[in-house]
Amino acid sequence: MEATEATMRLGMIGLGRMGGNMVRRLRRGGLGVVGHTRHFEHARQLEDECGMRAAASAEDLVRELAPPRIVWLMLPAGRPTEEHVERLSELLEAGDVVVDGANSHFEDSMRRGESLGERGIRFVDAGVSGGIWGLDEGYALMVGGPPAAVALLEPVLRALAPAPDRGWLHCGPTGSGHFVKMIHNGIEYGMMQAYAEGFALLEARRDFGLDLAAIAEMWRHGSVVRSWLLDLTAGFLAEDQKLESVAPHVGDSGEGRWTVIEAIERGVPAPVIATSMMMRFASQGQADYASKILAMMRNSFGGHAFRRTGGADGAGDV
Amino acid sequence: MEATEATMRLGMIGLGRMGGNMVRRLRRGGLGVVGHTRHFEHARQLEDECGMRAAASAEDLVRELAPPRIVWLMLPAGRPTEEHVERLSELLEAGDVVVDGANSHFEDSMRRGESLGERGIRFVDAGVSGGIWGLDEGYALMVGGPPAAVALLEPVLRALAPAPDRGWLHCGPTGSGHFVKMIHNGIEYGMMQAYAEGFALLEARRDFGLDLAAIAEMWRHGSVVRSWLLDLTAGFLAEDQKLESVAPHVGDSGEGRWTVIEAIERGVPAPVIATSMMMRFASQGQADYASKILAMMRNSFGGHAFRRTGGADGAGDV
Repeated sequence: MEATEATMRLGMIGLGRMGGNMVRRLRRGGLGVVGHTRHFEHARQLEDECGMRAAASAEDLVRELAPPRIVWLMLPAGRPTEEHVERLSELLEAGDVVVDGANSHFEDSMRRGESLGERGIRFVDAGVSGGIWGLDEGYALMVGGPPAAVALLEPVLRALAPAPDRGWLHCGPTGSGHFVKMIHNGIEYGMMQAYAEGFALLEARRDFGLDLAAIAEMWRHGSVVRSWLLDLTAGFLAEDQKLESVAPHVGDSGEGRWTVIEAIERGVPAPVIATSMMMRFASQGQADYASKILAMMRNSFGGHAFRRTGGADGAGDV
Repeated sequence: MEATEATMRLGMIGLGRMGGNMVRRLRRGGLGVVGHTRHFEHARQLEDECGMRAAASAEDLVRELAPPRIVWLMLPAGRPTEEHVERLSELLEAGDVVVDGANSHFEDSMRRGESLGERGIRFVDAGVSGGIWGLDEGYALMVGGPPAAVALLEPVLRALAPAPDRGWLHCGPTGSGHFVKMIHNGIEYGMMQAYAEGFALLEARRDFGLDLAAIAEMWRHGSVVRSWLLDLTAGFLAEDQKLESVAPHVGDSGEGRWTVIEAIERGVPAPVIATSMMMRFASQGQADYASKILAMMRNSFGGHAFRRTGGADGAGDV
């Protein structure tokens, strides 16, 4: 019998910000979910809240599923995901499906697909976009893997996506889902930097007395730069456009870096994505030593004064 | 008596791709329009089509309006706009309003505002976004000028915008409308380049056999990079994703350049917008001489072969 929304039950390991909301959305879609996380109390809470079945261990979770089992990992990429893939390769059997929804590197996914494949276990890599908004708006899902495994997964994808027939795609073979997600995030970095530079230029033009929140809101309607990222930007600017309490420090989480490495390995220019990455490094203080070197070079050849750390702002600066 | 949609009539000079569609949208909104363009036949056609009154000259157009007159210029920036502002400064009288909807430099607008102001004529600079889609979806309007003049213009803005209360903004004093539009276009350049780089990286990854049209369409729903520019991109990729008949040449039209100059004049870093500008110059062939210099440098210090123009692709390349 083919699994349908009504009869289907899958396992979810990792019930954090992403995994927890995905379970909620799957339950709203009528799917059965067995969930496991290190923090059993948290699983219990989700059980009470939305009828997910809480499993105390990966073993328990696997035991609660009927073959062909689907186990979706929603853990941090790297060691936590690696360890669980290894554990599942022992617990699952031929025909079962492991889905990795983390932001894993696509080459790790290709390796995991091969290694699980040796035991007949099928592996699907799923890039998931949508963040904390996914619960209500749905998640964009970029999926790679063998067609039969993806077909088995289809009811899950249809429930998680913004609509059953929209916002999810079987991109190609194993690894292609995480590859497409990686490029998606690279584009995101570039777009974010473009907006950020534009708003910084507006902010610098004090003589016009511009209301940046009103401008962002106006651009949302009919302008060429309207987008979901702009919607969010208009939202937080409406609360506070001075941002005095926000430190000028921007984190990054792997996928931007990998996109730039991909550009270099393929010899395909991606200067805007690369620059947006470099500006995040600069915001993290990693341009400071280069700036010190430049200041001292100017001092050496031109006698230009340099600022001393801890000194008054601008003192002696030429 | 205050002008309302029902009684209002304005003049439009310039009935090209933008001006013509704006007249159509204003007529749909119930406003009276007298239009003038160099090509009188074209004005006649619009008269037949949508009830705009065709004027044979700027003089005729001004004669058809009651004070306080509103004359909207929708001409190419630079000389055509300059000449018409000068002409209108002779034809109009104190209290009348000239609107410049072109992509004029905001400093030109500030100068024109001052010069018309000496004769009591009020000047409003209006950045208009929306392109060929504006007729149906409405235009985003970024307006600068004296509050009383903008208030007079409000019924026009409400009719052109996506909705009466959305997508238009009185940004600030004269010049600020075109300034905000300039930054808008700078952001647009950076966003476009970010998408372009991402799709180029997808295209280069031949081993996954990716369907770029399907990926763009999927990203439109629930992903972080969803936007109107992505909607358009999904549209043309669905028709043809190989783009073999499209030359890799990207034009530019002033505002991107001015945004980069603004960044330099203010000392505010905008490396992504600047790089997107430089990549357009490169696409125009303006990086070729630098590439020749680099090839000859490599030849000089390392003996690396260089390609000769007209030679077989890759022949002798090291």
